[in-house]
Amino acid sequence: MFEEKDQSRTAISELGEFGLISHLTANFKITRKSTVKGIGDDAAVIAPEKGSEIVVTTDMLVEGVHFDLSYMPLKHLGYKAVVVNLSDIYAMNAQASQITVSIALSNRFPVEAVEALYSGIETAARIYNIDVVGGDTTSSTSGLVISITAIGMADKKNITYRNGASENDLLVVTGDLGAAYLGLQVLEREKKVFEVNPNAQPDLEPYTYLVERQLKPEARKDIPKLLAELGVLPTSMIDISDGLSSEILHLCEQSKVGCNLYEEKIPLDPQVISTCEEFNLDSTTIALSGGEDYELLFTLKQEDFPKIKGNPNLTVIGHITARKEGAHLITRANTKIPLIARGWNALSEEE
Amino acid sequence: MFEEKDQSRTAISELGEFGLISHLTANFKITRKSTVKGIGDDAAVIAPEKGSEIVVTTDMLVEGVHFDLSYMPLKHLGYKAVVVNLSDIYAMNAQASQITVSIALSNRFPVEAVEALYSGIETAARIYNIDVVGGDTTSSTSGLVISITAIGMADKKNITYRNGASENDLLVVTGDLGAAYLGLQVLEREKKVFEVNPNAQPDLEPYTYLVERQLKPEARKDIPKLLAELGVLPTSMIDISDGLSSEILHLCEQSKVGCNLYEEKIPLDPQVISTCEEFNLDSTTIALSGGEDYELLFTLKQEDFPKIKGNPNLTVIGHITARKEGAHLITRANTKIPLIARGWNALSEEE
Repeated sequence: MFEEKDQSRTAISELGEFGLISHLTANFKITRKSTVKGIGDDAAVIAPEKGSEIVVTTDMLVEGVHFDLSYMPLKHLGYKAVVVNLSDIYAMNAQASQITVSIALSNRFPVEAVEALYSGIETAARIYNIDVVGGDTTSSTSGLVISITAIGMADKKNITYRNGASENDLLVVTGDLGAAYLGLQVLEREKKVFEVNPNAQPDLEPYTYLVERQLKPEARKDIPKLLAELGVLPTSMIDISDGLSSEILHLCEQSKVGCNLYEEKIPLDPQVISTCEEFNLDSTTIALSGGEDYELLFTLKQEDFPKIKGNPNLTVIGHITARKEGAHLITRANTKIPLIARGWNALSEEE
Repeated sequence: MFEEKDQSRTAISELGEFGLISHLTANFKITRKSTVKGIGDDAAVIAPEKGSEIVVTTDMLVEGVHFDLSYMPLKHLGYKAVVVNLSDIYAMNAQASQITVSIALSNRFPVEAVEALYSGIETAARIYNIDVVGGDTTSSTSGLVISITAIGMADKKNITYRNGASENDLLVVTGDLGAAYLGLQVLEREKKVFEVNPNAQPDLEPYTYLVERQLKPEARKDIPKLLAELGVLPTSMIDISDGLSSEILHLCEQSKVGCNLYEEKIPLDPQVISTCEEFNLDSTTIALSGGEDYELLFTLKQEDFPKIKGNPNLTVIGHITARKEGAHLITRANTKIPLIARGWNALSEEE
């Protein structure tokens, strides 16, 4: 279906571990002033900017759990693995500056496949202006595992946690929701069609936005910068990886508050609406529980509303209430139902 | 043979991903002043000490490649996974301060097994005085994969790279070499005996030091501190994970120098000598290529020799020469043979 086109195969053993690593990392250029030493020593060395704190996050992606190589090209996978980590840095209202990349892969992967993976990593590093400063490449007895750690910096006063939301703050989301999950549904449907009829040509045209959100998600590097330009310091922030409802509940729990979320305010792309109709799915459920959107969810003081009003990147979807009020969805029919977390959960799905 | 004794089994699905993570991380206490925020937000936040740079390293351990659970108890594995990363931080002449821990595991592991693994991680964190500030716990389709990223700090002027050695510098090693590799040979032999006769009781008494060096290696946290106390700033440093010869060649290559290593100076424990005789192995070969010793190898100016003379932790094993001289071993018989890297190599061993 989406097979790698390049059919040349070089066994990893022809290069050896050190050979493979230097081959793969040859394209990684150091561009950040804060990177004192990148790949090639026992550890990387980073010089913090004056007055800044360091922000660190890590994520592991496992073949057969987080991705399926039958419809995820390796280059896209490399790109996505970086992006999901950077998203966590931006969710601290920080700027990402460095990553380390560790990969375990079985010898069913030729060097060309690893090159495709690294080319996606290198592309993401270039686009997001981060340096790859370290990592590990090793063999695995079966599937592919990618572990990335991302490092960022921010002025101490700008770092935004999950626990700072207060009653009456506005609840704001970037971009739109639900598309990445629907993209996965489309790809899985096409995979089944392909398994039955390998000559079928998938027509993904009506779903381009959805498929792109699934295969090539982007992290909101622009938002910390935009907020600084608008003079807005969010009171709390989180990235939307597991679905809106799950993330709202994290914010509420850690901030010890409740909230009202308005169904009619949830931003949806037209392809999400039309595809939900086609698949007979409820678009609100998809936006609440779909996951993998990598948008940012944050709260801000009501007095800051004029600063963000009308900004096409930002949508006010609700407001914070007292903890005893609980967290609720106010439906289009004006009924109030408790928000529950039904986000995508890697571990429980497997069991 | 070394089975976990506790036979109770709780399926991971009973807790769920978030439940499992909070259950496992409940014991992790934050003790470092530099840890502003640990587990529980999108990212950890670290405040660099004034004038310090940040040092970052990462390592991935894969079941069936880096460890064999039939003789590696999970608690020891967790401990070792932390230690091998810290070793890279100390090799920069820095102090380790934080780690993140990502784990992929299949559902053949009950919660009790994951608890044992985390208890080893927690023990290492306590002993080495580092904070566990983040991570990821996910399922895998087959084996266990552990990816740890370690973070440290040091005054900018103290950070020691691989590329600073100069002609006439002395080559110094900490501790003794070859024991960890021999420990693995002993364990593998006992595993074979056990497979033939499950009632055989292994007598590991003559090999306690070797087995401990393999199963519970320690990183040289004491060395950066000792060197500071002695007033010695190494000119270059590396940790010995792949075997002495491989690490010496890294130092020589990156420093653009040669070296003479004296066979008679290589520090060996008496158990290494006696076990090499028993296994009919050459102890120098084992010390040169065995790997997993996690001692430190460094160079220092000749004028600093009086400061380290007689210190039981440090052995001068050679000196740096001009690059054109090459890197050589001077044998006990006073013949000069080129050093070659035959270190333990995870990837090529697998092929």
